[in-house]
Amino acid sequence: MPDGLFDGVLGRGRVGAAVGDRAWLQAMLDAEAALARARQLPAGQVEAIAAACRAELYDVAALGAQAAASGNPVVPLVEALRREVGGAAGGEVHRGATSQDILDTAAMLVARRALEPLGDDLRAAAEAAARLAREHRSTPMAGRTLLQQAVPTTFGLKAAGWMTALDAAGARLAAVPLAAQLGGPAGTLAPLGPAVLVRFSAGLGLAEPVLPWHTDRTRVADLAGGLGAACGTAAKAAGDVVLLSQTEVGEVREGLPGGSSSMPHKRNPVAAVSALGCARQAPGLVATLLASMEQEHERAAGAWHAEWRPLTSLLLATGSAAAWLRACLEGLEVDPARMRANLELPGGVPPAQRTPGATASAEALVDRALDRRARQPEADEADAQPS
Amino acid sequence: MPDGLFDGVLGRGRVGAAVGDRAWLQAMLDAEAALARARQLPAGQVEAIAAACRAELYDVAALGAQAAASGNPVVPLVEALRREVGGAAGGEVHRGATSQDILDTAAMLVARRALEPLGDDLRAAAEAAARLAREHRSTPMAGRTLLQQAVPTTFGLKAAGWMTALDAAGARLAAVPLAAQLGGPAGTLAPLGPAVLVRFSAGLGLAEPVLPWHTDRTRVADLAGGLGAACGTAAKAAGDVVLLSQTEVGEVREGLPGGSSSMPHKRNPVAAVSALGCARQAPGLVATLLASMEQEHERAAGAWHAEWRPLTSLLLATGSAAAWLRACLEGLEVDPARMRANLELPGGVPPAQRTPGATASAEALVDRALDRRARQPEADEADAQPS
Amino acid sequence: MPDGLFDGVLGRGRVGAAVGDRAWLQAMLDAEAALARARQLPAGQVEAIAAACRAELYDVAALGAQAAASGNPVVPLVEALRREVGGAAGGEVHRGATSQDILDTAAMLVARRALEPLGDDLRAAAEAAARLAREHRSTPMAGRTLLQQAVPTTFGLKAAGWMTALDAAGARLAAVPLAAQLGGPAGTLAPLGPAVLVRFSAGLGLAEPVLPWHTDRTRVADLAGGLGAACGTAAKAAGDVVLLSQTEVGEVREGLPGGSSSMPHKRNPVAAVSALGCARQAPGLVATLLASMEQEHERAAGAWHAEWRPLTSLLLATGSAAAWLRACLEGLEVDPARMRANLELPGGVPPAQRTPGATASAEALVDRALDRRARQPEADEADAQPS
Amino acid sequence: MPDGLFDGVLGRGRVGAAVGDRAWLQAMLDAEAALARARQLPAGQVEAIAAACRAELYDVAALGAQAAASGNPVVPLVEALRREVGGAAGGEVHRGATSQDILDTAAMLVARRALEPLGDDLRAAAEAAARLAREHRSTPMAGRTLLQQAVPTTFGLKAAGWMTALDAAGARLAAVPLAAQLGGPAGTLAPLGPAVLVRFSAGLGLAEPVLPWHTDRTRVADLAGGLGAACGTAAKAAGDVVLLSQTEVGEVREGLPGGSSSMPHKRNPVAAVSALGCARQAPGLVATLLASMEQEHERAAGAWHAEWRPLTSLLLATGSAAAWLRACLEGLEVDPARMRANLELPGGVPPAQRTPGATASAEALVDRALDRRARQPEADEADAQPS
Repeated sequence: MPDGLFDGVLGRGRVGAAVGDRAWLQAMLDAEAALARARQLPAGQVEAIAAACRAELYDVAALGAQAAASGNPVVPLVEALRREVGGAAGGEVHRGATSQDILDTAAMLVARRALEPLGDDLRAAAEAAARLAREHRSTPMAGRTLLQQAVPTTFGLKAAGWMTALDAAGARLAAVPLAAQLGGPAGTLAPLGPAVLVRFSAGLGLAEPVLPWHTDRTRVADLAGGLGAACGTAAKAAGDVVLLSQTEVGEVREGLPGGSSSMPHKRNPVAAVSALGCARQAPGLVATLLASMEQEHERAAGAWHAEWRPLTSLLLATGSAAAWLRACLEGLEVDPARMRANLELPGGVPPAQRTPGATASAEALVDRALDRRARQPEADEADAQPS
Repeated sequence: MPDGLFDGVLGRGRVGAAVGDRAWLQAMLDAEAALARARQLPAGQVEAIAAACRAELYDVAALGAQAAASGNPVVPLVEALRREVGGAAGGEVHRGATSQDILDTAAMLVARRALEPLGDDLRAAAEAAARLAREHRSTPMAGRTLLQQAVPTTFGLKAAGWMTALDAAGARLAAVPLAAQLGGPAGTLAPLGPAVLVRFSAGLGLAEPVLPWHTDRTRVADLAGGLGAACGTAAKAAGDVVLLSQTEVGEVREGLPGGSSSMPHKRNPVAAVSALGCARQAPGLVATLLASMEQEHERAAGAWHAEWRPLTSLLLATGSAAAWLRACLEGLEVDPARMRANLELPGGVPPAQRTPGATASAEALVDRALDRRARQPEADEADAQPS
Repeated sequence: MPDGLFDGVLGRGRVGAAVGDRAWLQAMLDAEAALARARQLPAGQVEAIAAACRAELYDVAALGAQAAASGNPVVPLVEALRREVGGAAGGEVHRGATSQDILDTAAMLVARRALEPLGDDLRAAAEAAARLAREHRSTPMAGRTLLQQAVPTTFGLKAAGWMTALDAAGARLAAVPLAAQLGGPAGTLAPLGPAVLVRFSAGLGLAEPVLPWHTDRTRVADLAGGLGAACGTAAKAAGDVVLLSQTEVGEVREGLPGGSSSMPHKRNPVAAVSALGCARQAPGLVATLLASMEQEHERAAGAWHAEWRPLTSLLLATGSAAAWLRACLEGLEVDPARMRANLELPGGVPPAQRTPGATASAEALVDRALDRRARQPEADEADAQPS
Repeated sequence: MPDGLFDGVLGRGRVGAAVGDRAWLQAMLDAEAALARARQLPAGQVEAIAAACRAELYDVAALGAQAAASGNPVVPLVEALRREVGGAAGGEVHRGATSQDILDTAAMLVARRALEPLGDDLRAAAEAAARLAREHRSTPMAGRTLLQQAVPTTFGLKAAGWMTALDAAGARLAAVPLAAQLGGPAGTLAPLGPAVLVRFSAGLGLAEPVLPWHTDRTRVADLAGGLGAACGTAAKAAGDVVLLSQTEVGEVREGLPGGSSSMPHKRNPVAAVSALGCARQAPGLVATLLASMEQEHERAAGAWHAEWRPLTSLLLATGSAAAWLRACLEGLEVDPARMRANLELPGGVPPAQRTPGATASAEALVDRALDRRARQPEADEADAQPS
């Protein structure tokens, strides 16, 4: 995916490489290598298997094609890996595991690796919003409801709203539990036993589940929910930028607006528009993943397969939305004079409400949000809970 | 909604009354009364307002019809409430607040009141699953993958899987922050100020947000995600019951199966089927709520309105799914003899794998899950996190 | 539904009454009466049954509650109807049919009755757009891409775009086949036979299906797709109105804008905003109905039940969106002077492109669209197909 | 996409190549070449441009990366194409068009090319179902409702139900209008004029739209609805096969079931399971495309970009589902003896209903469906409409 025709727009940033076919393949191989270690095979066998667990040794397209016979790509991968390792060690590859153990564990590794740049970009976007909040704490602008001017606010408060939402989205994603999967053919952990699960999880740095979760997709749903909320948050901020960038409003401008060969006067807010193009793919993908939670018995007949692409697409869309929003906010140019001029438009905020103290309350809220952030930089939940 | 033609099936349990029009109306009135208290109006005025904040004093249909002029039902409600209170106190009603303050706060109150029976039913369903896990810890049955018999497991392990997923769904919902909303016309907290917000939140037992969240819908998305995951979890368990109840499988039977006037032999698993009918409405509703996160500026032009019904429908669907699943699992009759007979079907689990010790690993996992549960009854996340 | 707290906003127009519980109940009774006729029972029995098939004779809430035992409301309705009819005719009620025959047929009747006001409102909205297209054929305004001014167009062309899309949406819905359902217990048409199906369909004015479609939900999907597209079309036009109504743009104004008690200067585009609030509920509901197409064997275990509410909600949302859009467009006030002033804003359309002939091409397109419409008033598809 | 790790399962058949990046690129180039012809450039220029419109001349990854600056891949493609053509002809490339003209037209070409193998596979699947219907017209089996045995039917009637639904899905997709897009910078057709649109559409074999449809996404919604319905239809049939293949039911078996390295007795219905894995991705993708219909003014700020991947994914998922279902049904092995044995299970169809004539009605329906099909092989709608 990361090198495709649409990836400049829809696969921005490092997340593309993290969710591409090669990344998935490496994650599956990482799971196989971790299994060999967790099973405490002889050191020579572990080394032989680990040495063969490098994605560049395998042909993605061939594995993909061979997957048709069994219905998943792990079966041909295990065959190829066994051949590559050879000998007695080759015979030990994958033993005790089932395809879904490897693929689900790989999915969690892919998610973790995608969440790194995604988290960085969300944090940087929040940081840019925080800077805007500080700098424009007292910059008056029209508060707008139903897209009509209402009463004054400050641009700092608008940016502070983006900031707290982005912080919450990042904290939510950071808290999503990513667990290893190991259960064997019917999820009973036979013949491996819990001790192998403990070592397997620890070796990969993933959470250790109480039970195999082949058909308990709570973790996938939780991840999907967090990604969907992050996209919604990015879309809210990007949408505001697009609206503020309108020719008739002109209160902000992207640092690197997109031009147009036929219309040289155009200054399109490309970063915000692209962020919206990415983020709006999320709700449908989340719905697919939630609908896929209904998985039969010990392993599902279709609902599991229906997760693979939506999960990949959702990680890519969210990561790309975050990267675009970061670019948008880090380069955002603000025009306080235009904000003030718009405040004085006929039909807008009534003169009686454009007093010097009109925005004092907004300014106090900016301080409140920045203070709270400074005190709880890693807070999962900034709301003060009822006692 | 709770008394409708489809509510016996799609609105089971106490959740219906908690999300009906009258419940919404009372929640809006509760918000108005709390605002009067938080503003520290004279005691007599507070009393006069609180006395008028009873849903039975108002005509739901009339308020609904009048809402068309302004685009939300709070505007006519405030007018009616002012008339009902009268005098100086009447003039104080709603002062400083905006419609969305009242409606969003009401939504959180409705959610909290709906989550009570919903949480009870999820807990009871999990408890029923726990009982099944204990009682059938060692009852052998076929593990099934892709709906084909694979290797032996125990019914206890299947039930333990339902249990851990239901526990996680309940914990997830219990952790969703439900915050008060108060921001005034453009979300600046003018003219009320933060102290009123502090008292307003505390008075309602809701979390106090850092900022007004008129267009930061993180909380709605979080609630939606938790409800969607709960529905997926209920659907998984209900789906298993439907499959195990098939005439040709016959391993479980609902305690109160549905009959058929034309086919007296039918024993339809009505509770599980109804749970599925409820739960499968969730993914689409969650998608709508996530898509509605993109809200413009200080108050949205449509996306907010698009939340009202989907949120109500989602609470109802989830609560009803939980109530049906509870009924299903609490009354479930298990047929170990049929399980054993199915294990011996030709083409199923090979004889070599039907050894006495074949299910030892499954039994150990049941113990593991029950032990973990006993030690962490309220755990938000049962996974052992990587250190 | 039609008299609820949110129905002034989300259930506007006559569609509410057409999809309410009482309408569903009457449609079920209409199906039962039609069955009696189609079976050619003795005239006295037909009359007795038909006389009892009036919704006002039954208690919706009681039927709803009793539905829990069997999992659908037809079972208690048939019992109540048999009691109401009494005697030999009572014993003939429903004979040969299954619950799903009655409920699915009722769904198609409800849809047909809801599509009447919905179609009227779509047509009226298209007519209002056509009038705007004619009147403003040559009214210059800025064409806007990515919300930036690009090159000149005319308001007439924008309105013509709404018009052709609304015409297409209406034609699409009018072409959706609404078929009777009759199949008996397992969809074999035993014991009734095809002749009864022929008369049953004709008697209700519904299409006669080749086969019973208990688990072939093509028709529901087709209806859902048409409704979803109609909502998207309404949302596009309503969204344009909201954007053009912005304080800073001010090119159109609703005839009956919503006020605000706290902000008397506000002129909220309530109709357009409400149309958006309705229409945006559609994609998620369509997704639920499409996901529900996967129905098992001869009658489904949950997917059918999962259709009832989403279908009702989708009809209501679409009908209400159409009614709001009609009100919005019929009353729309256009401000050509402001359009011209905006065209001359700095940073907008370059002066070199603001020539007198700049909009000739747009005007020709308006003529083309109006001409095509005049010649093909009922065209399902206005595109000229390749030969 | 077509050579990826998951494409053996999720990208089966020829549809993968039809929707891959190279196919998109070629379609864009086809649009550019057709534009040169439609503009009636000098023959030498047309030839020069056409000669350069071959996808293999361009670097997909580079174009993708360069797309980030402008927000779509057409801008860098036009630059590369101009360089490749050179001279005066190079300067004529793309003149008068806007990026969306090329990309939307390409989308319609990609759809048409993807619908070819997709249509073939749907037809072949329907044909296989028709053969099963004929051969098993009188093969008795249990009709099952709510997954409980109800009354007898025949396997032929079940297959006839798949057939009519697949025929309807194919007819629906064949009727979706695929139109050219040409409107220029703001959709006014300036400076090209309608005559160029007429020749452009005809040259590509696409329908000629009344108006440019940059922000009227009716056609995309229609396509999406048809694809979503086709997936639902495929899922219904595949789901039945999975259920009938259960170890405990055993009434059908795929011709090429999937094995398992660890469980040699497994005969997984891989084709049906994979069809489900593909088809279940559709509802969420349709929802995204419907939500994307709300496009602002003359060209949208994000909603258009949000269509690209979901449309591609939906074509791929539907095409792959159809290819899998075709393989499943063409190779399906039916076990009439097992069907009969299951009919006699205790608790199933009562003996009184297992009479020799019990299935006569089902057989008549099979004849009816096959007859209707023979007479209306290309019918868009097989229902007999009310007169």
